[in-house]
Amino acid sequence: MTEIEITDVTAACATSLVGEPLSEAAAAELAHTMKALADPARLRLLSIVAASGGGEACVCDLTGPVGLSQPTVSHHLKVLTEAGFLSRTKRGTWAYYALVPGALDRVSRALGAA
Amino acid sequence: MTEIEITDVTAACATSLVGEPLSEAAAAELAHTMKALADPARLRLLSIVAASGGGEACVCDLTGPVGLSQPTVSHHLKVLTEAGFLSRTKRGTWAYYALVPGALDRVSRALGAA
Repeated sequence: MTEIEITDVTAACATSLVGEPLSEAAAAELAHTMKALADPARLRLLSIVAASGGGEACVCDLTGPVGLSQPTVSHHLKVLTEAGFLSRTKRGTWAYYALVPGALDRVSRALGAA
Repeated sequence: MTEIEITDVTAACATSLVGEPLSEAAAAELAHTMKALADPARLRLLSIVAASGGGEACVCDLTGPVGLSQPTVSHHLKVLTEAGFLSRTKRGTWAYYALVPGALDRVSRALGAA
């Protein structure tokens, strides 16, 4: 597991990859955001949260489907939350995660899609 | 520099992150594709090629702007080519790289953008 520092997806995706050459700073920010998505477990977690009824999922619902320990799942969820893809709400014993509206679309636009 | 194995972007992006939960295999393929983009030098190289007059750039034009040695630039270009983002044409002494039409859009769609 690699620890990475991630800036918020909103800042990272303000510029587009296709148009004019990316500055060094913009490329570094966008690369950090892409790193959050460059992991199979994190992609699966995002897709499970996105497909969850009510739009949110509890850590307790996520460990089973991905077949990883709760600490590992919590680490991946933290990376996704810090990158701005997930929001986290604590209710009682559990934390619930939901997709941040528009976050994936912003990455999508940064890749230069029309 | 980390060596990564990358499958072609076309296969990796056949499914969408938002819709139904990604299978383990689909998540692994998409993560490999994202890894090719999760590097600031590779993002800058892609953006410079995209912005080049005539739609293609020579390795000899790319080392200066990114401030890296030619072997390092060639490595990054190889990763991007193997991932399906760039095409490579040899003419005389130099290799010329061009953006593969639709490759970034396919990743963009895999992220679930409308």
